[in-house]
Parts: sequence; structure tokens; C-alpha cells
Amino acid sequence: MKLVMFQLKSEEKENQRIGVVENDVVVDLQKAYAALLKDGGSVRAEEMAKTVFPSETAEFLKGGEKSLEEAKYVLSSVENASDEWKKQCTFPRDEVKLNAPVQAPQKILCVGHNYREHILEMGRDLPEYPVSFAKFANTIIGPEDDIPKYDISDQLDYEAEFAIVIGKRACNVKKEDALDYVAGYTVANDVTYRDLQRRTLQWLQGKSVDGTAPLGPWLVTSDELTDPSNLEISLSVNGEERQRSNTKNLVFSVEDLVEFFSGLMTLEPGDVILSGTPGGVGFARDPKTFMKDGDVCTVNIDSVGTLENRVKAAKRAEVKL
Amino acid sequence: MKLVMFQLKSEEKENQRIGVVENDVVVDLQKAYAALLKDGGSVRAEEMAKTVFPSETAEFLKGGEKSLEEAKYVLSSVENASDEWKKQCTFPRDEVKLNAPVQAPQKILCVGHNYREHILEMGRDLPEYPVSFAKFANTIIGPEDDIPKYDISDQLDYEAEFAIVIGKRACNVKKEDALDYVAGYTVANDVTYRDLQRRTLQWLQGKSVDGTAPLGPWLVTSDELTDPSNLEISLSVNGEERQRSNTKNLVFSVEDLVEFFSGLMTLEPGDVILSGTPGGVGFARDPKTFMKDGDVCTVNIDSVGTLENRVKAAKRAEVKL
Repeated sequence: MKLVMFQLKSEEKENQRIGVVENDVVVDLQKAYAALLKDGGSVRAEEMAKTVFPSETAEFLKGGEKSLEEAKYVLSSVENASDEWKKQCTFPRDEVKLNAPVQAPQKILCVGHNYREHILEMGRDLPEYPVSFAKFANTIIGPEDDIPKYDISDQLDYEAEFAIVIGKRACNVKKEDALDYVAGYTVANDVTYRDLQRRTLQWLQGKSVDGTAPLGPWLVTSDELTDPSNLEISLSVNGEERQRSNTKNLVFSVEDLVEFFSGLMTLEPGDVILSGTPGGVGFARDPKTFMKDGDVCTVNIDSVGTLENRVKAAKRAEVKL
Repeated sequence: MKLVMFQLKSEEKENQRIGVVENDVVVDLQKAYAALLKDGGSVRAEEMAKTVFPSETAEFLKGGEKSLEEAKYVLSSVENASDEWKKQCTFPRDEVKLNAPVQAPQKILCVGHNYREHILEMGRDLPEYPVSFAKFANTIIGPEDDIPKYDISDQLDYEAEFAIVIGKRACNVKKEDALDYVAGYTVANDVTYRDLQRRTLQWLQGKSVDGTAPLGPWLVTSDELTDPSNLEISLSVNGEERQRSNTKNLVFSVEDLVEFFSGLMTLEPGDVILSGTPGGVGFARDPKTFMKDGDVCTVNIDSVGTLENRVKAAKRAEVKL
């Protein structure tokens, strides 16, 4: 299943809700569930639908397998419904705006130096432990949003990343059980202001600027994408390929990372792990190349999807997130 | 005002609510407001009280000055009320359990190397930019909780910190306006697993273990503590003083930090900034001294309060936060 957060283009973001994309059609899970309940004679159909399909993925994921089962039930009901009925709760892809599939995670855990071939080509040793750092939820933007390029720096850089979204509370999980705790996967761009990142030894300030974590376009659930260990990942700027690798080159795999982080901290539904970026970032090119106003940055991951965002010059004070 | 999150000792944490401590008495703002509304003839008194005084400080702070005004109105009403009336909604300090005054911040921003005298005594230059790193909300525990010492390391260390809590959304705030965006202050202990902190160049993994951010005992509002620039801060372990300084020694003041961070990211009500720790941490002592099961760690900040937590050996798998 490809879970999305969406609103109709005519609606405000406050009205966003959870849906499923299939063949360029978005099924509105909340509306469809309410309609099914109404057909069944329920008097509080809409309130119940909002409870089962809340407007924040982390909340939805807290419902665990039951949430996913309800979503599948809705989908199969929609498939078998009349065209008249479908009209109420399905929308053509081009009539909706997709937002980030996860928007309020308690944690965004990032991993550095995690693609083997890139570490070796740089003449470095493979790390013994994941190099981990943080982003916060203020960085998240959706697949149809622009990446703001604030006038605080000219070194705006991209980092293609395979993102893991946690599905249930995870504490001290072992590698062999790790995938049971993963709700699914999405595509991320760990946008980084390089000069800010390198002003001090700690990277946070270059990683935590508003709008530096485009996520999307959807969350591919882990029952659909059962093996995350061999996915091609690439990034281009204005159509020119800049990064390419495969998740088989991850030093610390999805399972390793869930074991590692849950050994230190309790992971919550909706938490996001960005698993690191391959070689080829702008800062490492000769000459160094950074993103400019108007650039289009595209990240593709096989079996997950394509995340494309335009860079747009912005002033700090103008932004209301 | 000293804002607390509390529950009666006979209650579960799910029942916690917001209160004010005065002279060893806790005023239950939600209950008192509901009683006032009932006296005024309101039919939905309890629902309204929960809306005005929600059970999470960040939510309460989103109400801005209006929230604080309502709290003050409740307090003055309680003061002038009959003893009979007071009984309904005030509790002796020893009948309640205090929890952390903020529990679900979107961000916990930490600053390293920020006490001038300690930097100079180490022969280092004063930093040009704050060294900043992160903790997440999973680390927060309250003033009456134990600090878990997990068997993942023997290098559990303390760091006394003056904590700033943001009161309203702040984007690109200037130094001269910074204090308008501060809801208040509390005492923090930036508990750190030193060996984990130093395993890689990025500190996050030693800073983000569950239970490593004791906060409390209350939030002193910024209308009461108007000048945060000259507060004595000290820490002791089992009564032996280990750290002492004064917020006048901060390289980056409260105002500097609000300007700095809001220049990069949008700060939200409830966000916490830990402003750094003075010299004297266990790792820097000769010989190195770490916290053990049963140790009592006490942080005191003038005009704010005293935060005292016991260290307790714990296993990762046993913990349910």
C-alpha cells in the first residue's frame, strides 16, 4: 500500500487526511470508511472514521496492524463498489496535493557515512558504529513543496536518502525482529547547509533549518516492500545525475539501524530514520556545486518512488510553516 | 508563577494536569477553573476547563498570554475563596507527584562549551557560534523520577543546565525581542553516556538514551523571572558539590540563543533549549568519576529551583516509558 497525506487542491492543509494511492487514483480512507459505516447504519460515522483514520500518520500507525487491516478493508470495499459510490471518496491524482507522509515524528534520526563504496573510495575505514545525528519535525516538507533556500548561506546541498518509518513502539529490538517494527519506507532528501554544518564539530545547525527534510511522495508499507536490502537509489539536479548507489551497499542495514537505535532509545510509531547518503554530494564535487533558486532536485528509489522538489529563494522572516 | 505538571499520588500519569505551586500547595488549574465556571452557571464547565488548561504544557503555552492570564485569574479567585471551596482544587505538595513541566517538545536544543570561565581554564578559544546538538522527547523524565542507568555503559555523567522553554512561535527573532518568546525557565540535567557520546564525532548517541533529560521541578514563568542573566547554578552528587557557575558566565546568553536558533529554525511553544553546562563534569575529573546505582544528583539554580534525581540501575528491555 502507498499511504499518503493529502488534501484536495481546493482545500487548506488543515483539511488534510490519510489516503492510499493506486493507479493515479487517491482513495480517501476517512471518507470511504465513513461512507461504509453510514451504509451500515452507523449514526456517528464521521466521528468514528476520524478516530480510525486520524489526520496524522503517526497517530494512524499507533493503531498498529489493526489500522492497516482497516485500510485494506476499505480498499477492497471501494474496489467492489459502484462508480457512483466511488465518486464520493476517490480522486484523480491530479486533483489532490500530496503532503509529507509523516509530519510530526518525535524523532528524525539520521545516519552519516553509511554507503560502503563511498567510504572506501574516500580511503576511510568502515565505521564501527553508526554516525548518528538529528533533525526535527520543523524540517519536514512534502513532495509538492519547494525547498526554501534561505539567504543565510550559499551552500545548500542535497543528500538522497532511503527513509525508514517506525510502525510500533520499539525498545531493544533484535535484528531478526527489526522489520516487524517498520511501518514502511519513503524517499527523503537530507538537505544540508554545508557551511553551517561545518561551523562547529556538531552538524545539527546545518541540518535543522526549516524545510530541509523533503519526504514522500508516500509511505510504501512494509507488507508490500518486504525486502529493503537491494533498492537502487539515485539523485539528479535539473536532470543531471549526481548520486547513485543501492541499499545493498549500506554498512548498517535497516535491521542494524532499528536494533542500534532501539537499543539506546524507545522508538515511537512515526519516528523516521534516514539511512545515509551515497557519494556525489555537491560539497564533494570538484568544483563544489550547490543548489540555486529554481533548481529541481529529484530522488528516486526503486520500489518506493520519486521525490522531486524545486528550490526556491526565501527569506527567514517570511516563512510560516 | 511556578507551573507544574502533576497528578495525585493515588492517580495514574494519564490523569496528570497543569497546576501552580505556591507555598507548598499545588493549585489544580483545571479543577479550579471548572469549579469557577460551574459557580458561574456553565453547563460544560469540565470540557471548557480542559480546553483552557490542557494536560500538556506545550498545548497550554500555545494559548500565549491569554493562557497565563487565565491562570492568574484562577489563582486570585482561589486565594479569595472559602476554605471549603479551596479543598476541591488545592492539594498539599506531599500529596502530589510532580512530572516534568514540559514533556512533548518538538525540539530539545542543547548547547555545548557555553560557560566562559570553563572554556578559558581549558585553554580553549571562545566559540564563534554555539556548538549545538539534540536530544528528543524520549529523554525527558520528571523531578521525582529515577535516572535509569542502563547496562549499556559505565560512564553515566551529569551536566547541570539552565533550561529555556519557548512560549510562542519564533522565527528570526532579534536579540532585543528574544525574551518575549520565552515562556519561562526550568532546571535540567543533560545526562550523558560519555563513552557512547565519544564513539563517533557526532554526540547524539550518548545524549539520546531514554531518561537522560530530567527536567523540573517546575517552569518559572518569565514574568516572574525577568532577568535570567545572573543566576547561580550548581550540581552535587550525594551532597558533594561538583559544578558551580553563574549564568552571567554564559558565552551565548538566553537572548543570543533564541536569536541564533530562531534564525535557523521555527521554534514552537514548548521547545526546550538547554544552555550548556559549567566545568566539573565527571569525565573531566581526575580520576574520572561516573554516576552509580543509588547516587543522588542535585542541580540547583537560584530563583528557579532544585532538581534532584536518584540514579537507578535498569535494563533496556524492562522499560516502558
